[in-house]
Amino acid sequence: MKLKTPLITACLFASPAFASEAPKNIIYMIGDGMGPAFTSAYRYYHDDPATKEIEPTVFDSILVGMAKTYPDDVTYVTDSAASATALSSGIKSYNGAVAVDANKKPVKTMLEMAKEQGMTTGLVATSQINHATPASFAAHNESRRNYDEIANDYIDNKVDDQLPVDLLLGGGVRYFEREDRNLVEEFKQQGYQYITDFKDLPALQTLPALGLFADKAFPFALDENPTRLAEMTNKALSLLQRRDNGFFVMIEGSQIDWCGHANDIACAMAEMDDFAKSIELAKAYVDAHPDTLLVVTADHSTGGLTIGANGQYQWDTEAIKGVHQTAWPLAMSLAQSHDMIKTWNASVDWELSKEQGRQLAYAKLSEEPAKALYKEVKDIINKKSFTGWTTKGHTAVDVQVFAYGKGADKFVGSQNNTDIAKKLIGFIQ
Amino acid sequence: MKLKTPLITACLFASPAFASEAPKNIIYMIGDGMGPAFTSAYRYYHDDPATKEIEPTVFDSILVGMAKTYPDDVTYVTDSAASATALSSGIKSYNGAVAVDANKKPVKTMLEMAKEQGMTTGLVATSQINHATPASFAAHNESRRNYDEIANDYIDNKVDDQLPVDLLLGGGVRYFEREDRNLVEEFKQQGYQYITDFKDLPALQTLPALGLFADKAFPFALDENPTRLAEMTNKALSLLQRRDNGFFVMIEGSQIDWCGHANDIACAMAEMDDFAKSIELAKAYVDAHPDTLLVVTADHSTGGLTIGANGQYQWDTEAIKGVHQTAWPLAMSLAQSHDMIKTWNASVDWELSKEQGRQLAYAKLSEEPAKALYKEVKDIINKKSFTGWTTKGHTAVDVQVFAYGKGADKFVGSQNNTDIAKKLIGFIQ
Repeated sequence: MKLKTPLITACLFASPAFASEAPKNIIYMIGDGMGPAFTSAYRYYHDDPATKEIEPTVFDSILVGMAKTYPDDVTYVTDSAASATALSSGIKSYNGAVAVDANKKPVKTMLEMAKEQGMTTGLVATSQINHATPASFAAHNESRRNYDEIANDYIDNKVDDQLPVDLLLGGGVRYFEREDRNLVEEFKQQGYQYITDFKDLPALQTLPALGLFADKAFPFALDENPTRLAEMTNKALSLLQRRDNGFFVMIEGSQIDWCGHANDIACAMAEMDDFAKSIELAKAYVDAHPDTLLVVTADHSTGGLTIGANGQYQWDTEAIKGVHQTAWPLAMSLAQSHDMIKTWNASVDWELSKEQGRQLAYAKLSEEPAKALYKEVKDIINKKSFTGWTTKGHTAVDVQVFAYGKGADKFVGSQNNTDIAKKLIGFIQ
Repeated sequence: MKLKTPLITACLFASPAFASEAPKNIIYMIGDGMGPAFTSAYRYYHDDPATKEIEPTVFDSILVGMAKTYPDDVTYVTDSAASATALSSGIKSYNGAVAVDANKKPVKTMLEMAKEQGMTTGLVATSQINHATPASFAAHNESRRNYDEIANDYIDNKVDDQLPVDLLLGGGVRYFEREDRNLVEEFKQQGYQYITDFKDLPALQTLPALGLFADKAFPFALDENPTRLAEMTNKALSLLQRRDNGFFVMIEGSQIDWCGHANDIACAMAEMDDFAKSIELAKAYVDAHPDTLLVVTADHSTGGLTIGANGQYQWDTEAIKGVHQTAWPLAMSLAQSHDMIKTWNASVDWELSKEQGRQLAYAKLSEEPAKALYKEVKDIINKKSFTGWTTKGHTAVDVQVFAYGKGADKFVGSQNNTDIAKKLIGFIQ
């Protein structure tokens, strides 16, 4: 066998230039519920059927490893709080824990460490900004369900006498403008700009800032703004880079998980598309600022999604792309409609078969038509597209780890979700 | 932020020593049907419950990337033949294709190229040795179903006037000792030792050799010999290394896929255990012979396996470890039994609930008791262990890529299954 020239694949991102010091900026992106089936499915959903080639996605361009997600208490299947705590603090805890350990004692998060180091900090999510994943970076609570207490922590959980987070973009007005305590007023007293109209986002020019664009979470990407996370990501990166001391930002694709819980594939692919566009923006930022590290992962997989189901060796992406509304509002419209075929065709590009029409008509006769139609609408779309689901909850399959830029080589291979945090903390401290 | 010392994680296996030339020996291992859920599940199945730590598996120690498995014809979900052709030859073909392209024209495989280079070649499988995956390395046929023609190719598909494969270990006597053509006699005329009794494997001392240990496939690991692939791997490596010019061997964990098709989790975990033990032997061989490259991957995932199902945030490995027979023979015994509880307890460590007992009793009353019991036995075990499945077929989730030894760095990141072949062919040619 002939001699070969040196192989450089792995060392492309393990060169001394990358490895010699810590990155100045860290962009940490978490796709909530985004297991391996979601990134594979998104490639095929994202594929241009007009070309023979299957176009690679941004995920394909920066995959480096995988992570184990099991929590500290139950056997193997984590929730978003325990996993976010592992990803923010490097310790395993119990399901429901928000940056507290198995004894409910607060554990320091990498966002708090970044603040201690004088870095600018940010949290961006499409859920309420005090939901489990962002909460586990800047708050500490024994239960993810204590939404008011978690929101309070964004004021009360001081780091060196400063508020922990310089930029908060997400939903959750109801948790911040409360009768018992108006946190928005307290943020304003601390010099934060406050905006609630998403149209005002481009005009936001200075930090600190608080943007709450929904009473609780944003509407699903498929139902309203398909690029709301990408738009917030773009603004967050432009604001955070204006300070000299580097920044840490956690950006969550929050609702991939919710579509997974709903077993709604059109909903999930639209959330994946918004998250992928956000990662593309972050990757472009790294290209323009090579002293930045981008790390992307998931907290767990949701729904037991499979590409192909019921013995069929195919997955019909056109059927999924043809659905322009998530299942619940579509079911509500059908429940109120006097012409279900017309209502269906207003939201879906492909026609119902006679049998599918009968399936909906029968559901409408039930005691709770909207609820019954919700189930049947998803059944029709999943069967039509050959999409499989095994649960309305989470599963324990390893998730992927993606990294790009300065220090990305650290994340190659199999690791624990806590190891991802420890490696990032090693860069910050 | 402080400066850091150099990071070496990725470059541990991208050092100049590894990258400067091609490996002398290539061990290529394929877990048929072994998607990401199977390797994650195996970690938890393999875990020692007596320790707090979740012990890593051999898969965790050599993960480097993932691979896309879509075939050339249908949308996204491959069969084992198209995928094996991609993995053996670097070209995408249609489902059913055995080392032929979309026009049914033979494509050269890496095993044939290795033979041309004077390397010693081997194929090892727990299926019949002329089954789709091994077939796609040394035979060419428009259909995987042409078992006799494929077996003939192991004699007729000459490479530089030599038989293509020096060592064949697997099942399939019926395809080689045929009335229309006795291939075994032809192998013997070509100087091959022939053994059919697995007990004679240790005594096998010289090449070329043909070992066929079952009429078709081996029995499942759970039902008979739980280490038959590991024993063949051990023997293959000791025989192949005796020649000077290096070797290429493909070793398949064939029946992970079949347990997946059956949705039989106890069956699948036993097959994963035999495959993992085989990989451990190959990894130890690389440690002793650093001029060797080990690459492990899967052709696709099977069954839509999920760890956790039906809303439950847990997976009960003790329930799975407590099952000591695959579902079909257990169902057959139950169908013939006059005391199903006693029969169940002879093969399963945990007792049936009253409801589960009634479930089996009711199935036994059906027109086809064995068939009905087969379905119920799997339902009971899957529900008890919180195991999910979505199909009796394959799914299109990306599979993992594992690599260790000389040149392993080439396989880091996301790649097409055809890229794995192209990289290996780059080492051979």
